[in-house]
Amino acid sequence: MQSRDIIVAPATALGGAIAVIRMSGEGSVALCGNLFKGRKSLAEAKSHTIRYGSICDGERVVDDVVVAVFRAPHSYTGEESVEISIHGSRYIAHEVMRLLCEQGARMAEAGEFSQRALAAGRIDLSQAEAVADLIAAESRAAHAVAATQMRGGYSELLEKLRGELLNITTLLELELDFSEEDVEFADRERLRSMLEQTDGAVVRLMESFRVGNAIREGVSVAIVGRPNVGKSTLLNRLVGDDRAMVSDIAGTTRDTIEESVVIDDIRFRFIDTAGLHDTDDRLEKMGIERTERAIRQAQIVLYMVEPSQCEFELPTLSDEQTMLVVVNKMDATSERNIEGALYISARGGEGVDALRHALRSTVDTEGLYRGEVVVSNMRHFEALSRAHEGLQAAVKALDMGVSEELLAEDIRSAINALAEITGRITSDDILKNVFANFCIGK
Amino acid sequence: MQSRDIIVAPATALGGAIAVIRMSGEGSVALCGNLFKGRKSLAEAKSHTIRYGSICDGERVVDDVVVAVFRAPHSYTGEESVEISIHGSRYIAHEVMRLLCEQGARMAEAGEFSQRALAAGRIDLSQAEAVADLIAAESRAAHAVAATQMRGGYSELLEKLRGELLNITTLLELELDFSEEDVEFADRERLRSMLEQTDGAVVRLMESFRVGNAIREGVSVAIVGRPNVGKSTLLNRLVGDDRAMVSDIAGTTRDTIEESVVIDDIRFRFIDTAGLHDTDDRLEKMGIERTERAIRQAQIVLYMVEPSQCEFELPTLSDEQTMLVVVNKMDATSERNIEGALYISARGGEGVDALRHALRSTVDTEGLYRGEVVVSNMRHFEALSRAHEGLQAAVKALDMGVSEELLAEDIRSAINALAEITGRITSDDILKNVFANFCIGK
Repeated sequence: MQSRDIIVAPATALGGAIAVIRMSGEGSVALCGNLFKGRKSLAEAKSHTIRYGSICDGERVVDDVVVAVFRAPHSYTGEESVEISIHGSRYIAHEVMRLLCEQGARMAEAGEFSQRALAAGRIDLSQAEAVADLIAAESRAAHAVAATQMRGGYSELLEKLRGELLNITTLLELELDFSEEDVEFADRERLRSMLEQTDGAVVRLMESFRVGNAIREGVSVAIVGRPNVGKSTLLNRLVGDDRAMVSDIAGTTRDTIEESVVIDDIRFRFIDTAGLHDTDDRLEKMGIERTERAIRQAQIVLYMVEPSQCEFELPTLSDEQTMLVVVNKMDATSERNIEGALYISARGGEGVDALRHALRSTVDTEGLYRGEVVVSNMRHFEALSRAHEGLQAAVKALDMGVSEELLAEDIRSAINALAEITGRITSDDILKNVFANFCIGK
Repeated sequence: MQSRDIIVAPATALGGAIAVIRMSGEGSVALCGNLFKGRKSLAEAKSHTIRYGSICDGERVVDDVVVAVFRAPHSYTGEESVEISIHGSRYIAHEVMRLLCEQGARMAEAGEFSQRALAAGRIDLSQAEAVADLIAAESRAAHAVAATQMRGGYSELLEKLRGELLNITTLLELELDFSEEDVEFADRERLRSMLEQTDGAVVRLMESFRVGNAIREGVSVAIVGRPNVGKSTLLNRLVGDDRAMVSDIAGTTRDTIEESVVIDDIRFRFIDTAGLHDTDDRLEKMGIERTERAIRQAQIVLYMVEPSQCEFELPTLSDEQTMLVVVNKMDATSERNIEGALYISARGGEGVDALRHALRSTVDTEGLYRGEVVVSNMRHFEALSRAHEGLQAAVKALDMGVSEELLAEDIRSAINALAEITGRITSDDILKNVFANFCIGK
């Protein structure tokens, strides 16, 4: 199943002062050594040491480099690996990789390094996914979710739940073996309570997905209001302040969506919408339909009005959504007659901090920072849902007094669903899907 | 003059699987050690070794990292340095740098690492500039120019020329000391020939700037022709083929100008222009003025016509410019009656390889690949021009029989100009200008 090729890829983005080319597989050091000229040879380099020298194409020096050597199993992949730090030019990166491929390496596929780390048992599947999430993390909360998962707290919890279910099935199978003697090893009451307890833990994990997903994907906020109420001004202010924060470390560029803003530790995705009002115009109607869809899909609806606007009809939201009524242009009035509303001046900035605070308060991260496991991955949520279904079915089967065989089957489906998350049970399809979303070089 | 702070900056671009944070200055290892938790302590790490561990903010683990330790003077800057490989998230990069700054490091300014390498005498100024050029190199030729300069071949040549001129001034000064005795140490004929020889070498370097600058900045090609003659189709074909080449290594993104194309080993910058024809329309006139400017500034003018277009008036070019007449839509005709023209089909691709070849042939890189020094930097060209002026003045002064004092002054101005290139003589202004163009982290 596992390819034994030597794989190579850029491990860093290109375009900085330096770039790192990563190579993994038995023989990587010798392969790199074929191109390397330095005071000391690469072949004898111990693990976790660095050699300074040049990568050469025959007589031509392609670049002066620093090569870090990792011997198996003390590397990310568990295999012999090298990391070549080059000057960060695209041309040099291409040349070095071309030469390494000429020597027998091949370009790595997306996620292939992590896939090897998985195969070597250095990380499990949910940890591999956490690595990808960690790389994508743009806020402290998203980082915390991914970091907890990467460090294995999540896997431990799932393994514990799985272990308990395995114990139950073992007891049930014992009963099956002795079924003719009508022995009942498993106390049905205790069995029921064990199943419900495990199911409760699964449900709690499922419930954490709402916050986890919001943190990972960014909390969606639909900004709704009449034209000229100040929606764009507010957006610019929120984005602008955030930009200033980001650019205080020069040399970093943002390639996220323009309307994405980190408030404290959470990323919010602001969706500017067309105004909500009655119209017969076809084009305008389409705009309003889009607005209505945005409202349905948003986690927060930020409803903006002007002081002069005495009447407005708030859209109906679901229980899981939050409405924030914001009165803009507060500098134009002293009246504050809308209950529960936030009064701001998008232009002057007054009240915007309070708005930020209100937005931030919609996300409860207390458990997260206490170290609780938070589910943020849709694949995991789906697997947990299947485990939940299996456990529910098992409890029902127990109550109905069905045979141990059928009962065990329900529990096994829950066990398998949990095992899918950490990759104990896995299919090529799952692996393909998971690693296809990785970047090259990871 | 040199700051003794510990400086920190991202050394790689952010956004890849990993990113590298670079820190330099006496005490870097201990400073990093304050945040580092690993099986082995960082403090005792020898030069050129790597430690695996975590960067922690108190109890909170910010990231699992790999730290490379470089002890003075065996680092790029000549100072004690560490390179921290983190997961490539912007959030983590910010956090790690924030924590390092809390511990007493400060964010590095653009080019500050190279400036320290310069101050430590590890590289000279032209080599520091070559590092920046190397990072920016997008073609084999640009890489070769920068690599030769970085490896010091250029500095050596300049030092040799400077040394010869210094010898001459020493002789002249000796004469001055003995002037009352009317001794003439320097044979005036020999002196003249030495000056002319050195000047010849300076002029050859200046002449190489035309090719060097074209290689470094990309050869500018103005595509001129009537509307619908196929200019954009040709451009898309040239760019498209190049894109395909670039993207064969996935995960790399191009942020260069869309119309920039590497042909073989040289980058060409294609400038699409408005059609050239008589008009009274004001807007069109402005377009044509822009076209005329593009033609004046281009190194190559690619004049496109259709087979049906029997009459056209080629613009007048300077001696240093090249005209290529290209007849597009050759599939529409079998006539080939324009002498020296290239017949292509931009749509079908026929003849485009020959056009590429013709473009590539305009740049003579024979000397470059033979290892000859090629000047590519405007600052160097200007310094060489001043050296040339000084030497010309010296020869003239010699012929006119002026005093040794004035003669020595002319030669010294040439010496100083050459010394500016390698940074032997330098001002804060020059340094500021040079390093301001560097990226952060270099």
